[in-house]
Amino acid sequence: MKIDEQKNEKIKVGINGYGVIGRRVADAVLKQKDMRLIGIADVSTDLRVQMAVNQGISLYASSDDAFNQMNESGAPVSGKIADLLKQVDVIVDCTPKRQGAKNAALYRDYRVKFILQGGEKHEVTGHSFVAETSYEKTLDRDSTRVVSCNTTSVVRTLSALKNANILKSARGVLLRRATDPWKSDQKGILNTLVPEDKIPSHQGPDAQSVDPELDVLTMAVMVPETLAHLHYWTVRLNRNSSREEILELFKKSPRIALIRASDGLGAINSVKELMLDLGRPHGNLYEVGLWENLVEVRGDELFFAYMVDNQAIVIPETIDAVRALFGKTRSVSQSIQQTNDSLGIPAFFGGHKKDDLR
Amino acid sequence: MKIDEQKNEKIKVGINGYGVIGRRVADAVLKQKDMRLIGIADVSTDLRVQMAVNQGISLYASSDDAFNQMNESGAPVSGKIADLLKQVDVIVDCTPKRQGAKNAALYRDYRVKFILQGGEKHEVTGHSFVAETSYEKTLDRDSTRVVSCNTTSVVRTLSALKNANILKSARGVLLRRATDPWKSDQKGILNTLVPEDKIPSHQGPDAQSVDPELDVLTMAVMVPETLAHLHYWTVRLNRNSSREEILELFKKSPRIALIRASDGLGAINSVKELMLDLGRPHGNLYEVGLWENLVEVRGDELFFAYMVDNQAIVIPETIDAVRALFGKTRSVSQSIQQTNDSLGIPAFFGGHKKDDLR
Amino acid sequence: MKIDEQKNEKIKVGINGYGVIGRRVADAVLKQKDMRLIGIADVSTDLRVQMAVNQGISLYASSDDAFNQMNESGAPVSGKIADLLKQVDVIVDCTPKRQGAKNAALYRDYRVKFILQGGEKHEVTGHSFVAETSYEKTLDRDSTRVVSCNTTSVVRTLSALKNANILKSARGVLLRRATDPWKSDQKGILNTLVPEDKIPSHQGPDAQSVDPELDVLTMAVMVPETLAHLHYWTVRLNRNSSREEILELFKKSPRIALIRASDGLGAINSVKELMLDLGRPHGNLYEVGLWENLVEVRGDELFFAYMVDNQAIVIPETIDAVRALFGKTRSVSQSIQQTNDSLGIPAFFGGHKKDDLR
Amino acid sequence: MKIDEQKNEKIKVGINGYGVIGRRVADAVLKQKDMRLIGIADVSTDLRVQMAVNQGISLYASSDDAFNQMNESGAPVSGKIADLLKQVDVIVDCTPKRQGAKNAALYRDYRVKFILQGGEKHEVTGHSFVAETSYEKTLDRDSTRVVSCNTTSVVRTLSALKNANILKSARGVLLRRATDPWKSDQKGILNTLVPEDKIPSHQGPDAQSVDPELDVLTMAVMVPETLAHLHYWTVRLNRNSSREEILELFKKSPRIALIRASDGLGAINSVKELMLDLGRPHGNLYEVGLWENLVEVRGDELFFAYMVDNQAIVIPETIDAVRALFGKTRSVSQSIQQTNDSLGIPAFFGGHKKDDLR
Repeated sequence: MKIDEQKNEKIKVGINGYGVIGRRVADAVLKQKDMRLIGIADVSTDLRVQMAVNQGISLYASSDDAFNQMNESGAPVSGKIADLLKQVDVIVDCTPKRQGAKNAALYRDYRVKFILQGGEKHEVTGHSFVAETSYEKTLDRDSTRVVSCNTTSVVRTLSALKNANILKSARGVLLRRATDPWKSDQKGILNTLVPEDKIPSHQGPDAQSVDPELDVLTMAVMVPETLAHLHYWTVRLNRNSSREEILELFKKSPRIALIRASDGLGAINSVKELMLDLGRPHGNLYEVGLWENLVEVRGDELFFAYMVDNQAIVIPETIDAVRALFGKTRSVSQSIQQTNDSLGIPAFFGGHKKDDLR
Repeated sequence: MKIDEQKNEKIKVGINGYGVIGRRVADAVLKQKDMRLIGIADVSTDLRVQMAVNQGISLYASSDDAFNQMNESGAPVSGKIADLLKQVDVIVDCTPKRQGAKNAALYRDYRVKFILQGGEKHEVTGHSFVAETSYEKTLDRDSTRVVSCNTTSVVRTLSALKNANILKSARGVLLRRATDPWKSDQKGILNTLVPEDKIPSHQGPDAQSVDPELDVLTMAVMVPETLAHLHYWTVRLNRNSSREEILELFKKSPRIALIRASDGLGAINSVKELMLDLGRPHGNLYEVGLWENLVEVRGDELFFAYMVDNQAIVIPETIDAVRALFGKTRSVSQSIQQTNDSLGIPAFFGGHKKDDLR
Repeated sequence: MKIDEQKNEKIKVGINGYGVIGRRVADAVLKQKDMRLIGIADVSTDLRVQMAVNQGISLYASSDDAFNQMNESGAPVSGKIADLLKQVDVIVDCTPKRQGAKNAALYRDYRVKFILQGGEKHEVTGHSFVAETSYEKTLDRDSTRVVSCNTTSVVRTLSALKNANILKSARGVLLRRATDPWKSDQKGILNTLVPEDKIPSHQGPDAQSVDPELDVLTMAVMVPETLAHLHYWTVRLNRNSSREEILELFKKSPRIALIRASDGLGAINSVKELMLDLGRPHGNLYEVGLWENLVEVRGDELFFAYMVDNQAIVIPETIDAVRALFGKTRSVSQSIQQTNDSLGIPAFFGGHKKDDLR
Repeated sequence: MKIDEQKNEKIKVGINGYGVIGRRVADAVLKQKDMRLIGIADVSTDLRVQMAVNQGISLYASSDDAFNQMNESGAPVSGKIADLLKQVDVIVDCTPKRQGAKNAALYRDYRVKFILQGGEKHEVTGHSFVAETSYEKTLDRDSTRVVSCNTTSVVRTLSALKNANILKSARGVLLRRATDPWKSDQKGILNTLVPEDKIPSHQGPDAQSVDPELDVLTMAVMVPETLAHLHYWTVRLNRNSSREEILELFKKSPRIALIRASDGLGAINSVKELMLDLGRPHGNLYEVGLWENLVEVRGDELFFAYMVDNQAIVIPETIDAVRALFGKTRSVSQSIQQTNDSLGIPAFFGGHKKDDLR
């Protein structure tokens, strides 16, 4: 591959698809010392893309049609997707669902490593990624798939239990936000709840694509809000445990943030507002926001609940995935630390961090 | 007690509190052949109360203050609550939460049997009621408490399993509607999800107040809609079962209605609309609306989901509770049948009933 | 035409399209002494249609495909739309937007009078209908179009002013409910407001299709609720007036109901709940629900606000339109009275009616 | 007053009340070259306050009780409000509604200039402020009141017309967001619209407290969303005009941003998301977001619609008010320019700015 690991060169990153996720990945790449953003590709020149250009990011056209259209509209387009691929070490595909699978052949043709998002099937890359579980198996691979927001949260939390040899099985109920804020004027649901028409939902098997040993089953329902997903878990442990033991396991996890209702963080809206108060871009909550007050243990049964910012949680995983593909940083904990530091994780936002102030 | 059971006289019923529940109980009492509505008591003369008067229902004042106020406003008030109590065999208390407990002494003073609603604690009557489980133990008692909407649904569904000797333990996630439609201009939540700040929530122990043998635990979250609660259950059975076996158990239950997403009933709004299409008053769904397509069995694990119309589900239970207190009808199945017939349960609304048409 | 007016025969009515409006029109036709519902036609056999069949209403297939499908599914279909047309005097077309225009030729072929709904253009029938304004001009016509819910409310309220020779011009802001309750699990908007992308919106010209003399302009915005539309009006009068004078004009109007916030009717949800409390089918508000407390006059300027139940307001107009086409009842006030009585308009629901009780 | 204007010293600013507005004012003060943030005062040590402390901002207690509580909890409190007042030139009061009026005496006692927010009455300071209209009359005053978000938007937009000698009268319909995102788990309305119970609403007279010459009347309705207010205006001009002329007037206004539905900014959610994409703190929209495509002129009538970010719009006005009280910068346009530059107004976000790219 193109990167010369000896020379400490930066990884040259391209992004195909500049929507909700692509935009956030670009922001995150710009904050990495070991990466360089070569350019972005898209099919439109909407306001977001124009803002990227204004920021000085090079713009490429994802298709021939888009290239012509961009030229006609006078947008300062630097070339086609092929031109971008020629310059990068890795392309992060953030195109709409099922489009990444179609793009994979192109990326392979140009011998560029690539990362797909959770809208694609596991089979396209044959590999699925959540940093803590997958990093070391990803080293020097040519491609991987960063799993969806919900699946990422499942693997993060259940891994914290599994790594302590305490997890037997996990059954989750997932309340899914109906649509993203950006799109909520065009679609959504109103004053209703919409159960997925089958149990189980796909997130259980998807988590198993990352870690086949997980005994996990999920049920999902769409709820009328735009902010975040909310998960409730009923877990069987393989021995009796205590609330304190479980809290310690979650606290040690690098991307789980413990929050407390008593800090005024009793609902998903107040947590999201806090992220804005913290100055995080887009109010991103990169962590699993897990309520300390909702962790409950009864003998060998564990119950807990957490929220998932579907627009943000996969961003740090994507950065780690880029790093893993090139293998310069061979330690998962080192990569996670590096990514977390760049994104301000863990930020101060209540929970166990609060005690530092008092 | 006042009713002469030999003479086949009607049970004389009074209702204290004419809000969302009181109104519906009154409507249901008016449909019973073995009951007579003597009057309603309330503290206000709002439009609902005025409509009752317009219908020819006698109005009493729940308090002295209310009596004076009603007189001053020219409302045709027939007397005070005491005057109502002197005429009735039983009073159904539908006053706001915690008010019923205060009223119990008064009811006892007048030696009138009484029924409280689920906003009161079990201890006030020492007895909690869901028809199928409690009817026979309620015969000839002086009082009982019809449990809350959520608890009623829990006991109905879990009893269907327990009665088949198949239930081991049940863990539920309860999505609670934020407020009633009538009040949604004064309170509510917007674009958020609000988990109750503790696990477990109170519905598990409340179900045990009806049936102490149930091994049940619940978690609850408030969601931004007004229509109905939605429950997801993870159940451990004491042996392997099959979807077909479980469906048969639910079908046999007299107040569980099986619904199918494929009939256009994929969400709580469409089910509620169907109740209106059926011409039910207020679009009442008296049954547990349980999705046939969401019943899933995996070995000795059972998963299912259903909706609860919090304004309607306790109405048939209240009618049965009235009947049980007087013991004329000594068979639970006979009382349930009588109540169901009077309320149009089971109505035709898809699920297994639909096959009749085709 | 087929009806023999001398013999006091009932008008034979068919309905094509059994959705939100079609269902309500059928219910209303069944309540008319001078009409007979021959049958309904639809393309599906969904639960609503099955309920109609269960009620004893004859079912026809709106298309050949639907006919075959209904037969295959075993639905008791009585024939095709042509078979229905052969038996009726008038067909009320309640098919989806723009479909009515396509159906008009068929109706003309079978020499059946017909009524289209507001989703069709004025040009298809060349005539648009709101009872008070149009009835007499509709007598003995072959077809008309009952205008949309919003337009109906505009014509009703502005006509009350125009008929008193006091109206100069009217400018309205229309808050449109995002979707119907029945469909709110499939579409909707969430936590946003969506202005129509042009001013003026189409309702002004549409009102002029009923009464070309109206000087009216409207602006529209979609809001995230399912219950009703809400209109705010800024009106210029051609002379100074007073709140009392305007209230009298609105009170005299047969399909405007005055409501008061002080009666607990301060928002669209509580008004809709009251309709359910009144036992109206589907909680239908057939009237314009106009807030007495929001009528304000400043010199020659008038301000007021009202709500529109988009599922119900056109139902009485449709009944009047049927009657007008046959001309038996030649007086608009007689037809309106007859329709209102059959539907329970005006019901008791606060406002000036409330005083009767006290 | 304490500031020595000759020596070009920075204005020493304190903020009392660190909620939604206080926090944003603090952020803005920190960006001003001619101001210094001395400290903030509050009654609590919630997470927001703790974050301020973490940022290095000095914390004072707004009351004696709060001081004791802060000390007990170990919070690093620097003193009481009196201690803050001794050090500052001006205090910006961002305490809850009606609290500022109580605080005014204290500020006067300490001979500190002060600014109240729109929750207070005009009479408390006898002066109300919107930069473009009030700046010069505010020079060297001791206090002023920055009017509410809605009123600020009214004065900004109508002044643009009035200054061109074209405005006769303006009638507005205000759709008010139900609650702030931070609080939407504790209050809100659901699936309804709640008209204010009187016409006119208070914003008209409030605008006249800034500019008594405005002929303005408003009607208000609460809508179920948290993002922004939306205004629709019906304006009478004193002569015929054209869309082009009006657009030019709005474009020249320093705090009106023209947006276009055709840029994907067709609703309030997408505009707010764009602010986050732009990296503005909290996604603040400081400008009136006025839709270019919704400006319509018919003879001497003008119609338009815009959105108001109630959490952000008064922030630049507050900064200008601080500056005006000290009179160093005597030109309104210079102060506005300075404030706008510091806050990134006008940012690139479509409308007329977009053309620059193409």
